[in-house]
Amino acid sequence: MAFSPLVDELVESLRCLPGVGQKTAQRMAFHLLERARSGGVRLADALSNAMDGVRRCESCQNFSDTEVCGICENPERSNGTLCVVESPSDLLAIEQTSDYKGSYFVLMGHLSPIDGVGPDDIGIERLLRRVRSEGVTELILATNPTVEGEATAHYISDRLDGSGILITRLAHGIPVGGELGYVDGFTLTHAFRGRKPLLD
Amino acid sequence: MAFSPLVDELVESLRCLPGVGQKTAQRMAFHLLERARSGGVRLADALSNAMDGVRRCESCQNFSDTEVCGICENPERSNGTLCVVESPSDLLAIEQTSDYKGSYFVLMGHLSPIDGVGPDDIGIERLLRRVRSEGVTELILATNPTVEGEATAHYISDRLDGSGILITRLAHGIPVGGELGYVDGFTLTHAFRGRKPLLD
Repeated sequence: MAFSPLVDELVESLRCLPGVGQKTAQRMAFHLLERARSGGVRLADALSNAMDGVRRCESCQNFSDTEVCGICENPERSNGTLCVVESPSDLLAIEQTSDYKGSYFVLMGHLSPIDGVGPDDIGIERLLRRVRSEGVTELILATNPTVEGEATAHYISDRLDGSGILITRLAHGIPVGGELGYVDGFTLTHAFRGRKPLLD
Repeated sequence: MAFSPLVDELVESLRCLPGVGQKTAQRMAFHLLERARSGGVRLADALSNAMDGVRRCESCQNFSDTEVCGICENPERSNGTLCVVESPSDLLAIEQTSDYKGSYFVLMGHLSPIDGVGPDDIGIERLLRRVRSEGVTELILATNPTVEGEATAHYISDRLDGSGILITRLAHGIPVGGELGYVDGFTLTHAFRGRKPLLD
């Protein structure tokens, strides 16, 4: 852009956001400059503070402002149940149900030998140490139902073989509100195998 | 999000970007925190500098770091041709063709009585003053071919009625590389009416 190095730099910087290419970055920059200057200033501050201040929780690896995050510090949540998720957004989705009251461990990824991601990169040793030291009675492996997620779950479960800890995996089945005709075959098979008596 | 006020604030601030909702903002925030911290810091600086330093060019109303923008200051571009566009991105699209060598006037909008946007809001008086004072010989009205864009073009042309200045509008026709079967009827009619002899 010939007319403004500052706008050029803003457009170029916006491209570090996921899914934002040249045109979208331009649209975002012009929108901020034309109609949302105060929003832009607020975003600049929030970015600068977050990039500087957000670290990993020493206990669960999730993003945190403090050494140990609020969930890990909450004594009511140390009830012997530990839920392993792949990412902070998975944790967030579970938190939003308000149903789970235990603690978490965030892998920040999954095992993926093809990308060079091994057990050390996702903190499996830290997880195992925590499971042993905290007296965890149930370990819920809530990794995604993808090839990598399943492999990660199996790896963790293998490493805890013989420990006597109950290791569980989230149920597969038909989504609530879904229509049978649109559900894929694998899910339907799982739903059939996991069927339950109506009056239990 | 229970675990980090800094992350919360970042997600909330990212929502000021156009087309970014809660989920996308979350994905952006996690991406920056996990994989692009340096990009995030750069974006924070760029935003802060741009929000603070970018103003409107006194001459053409476009975004500029200086009182008068580079294009308006360039004496080679004051050749009596002035191109009126609705937005900086339109200017950019024209600049990228490297074909037009005159100067610009950026309306930063179009006439839209329903939204309360009148001639004063898009700087029509400033445009007319500039046309008269600079000895413009051709005024190219490159507003969008929408109802509002056409209305804006007609309004400007009416205001300059009798001034002796050549007022032009961009040609309508089939896009280069387009297929006739997919071109809408209005465009095709314009293309027929604007047909040209092959050997001119």
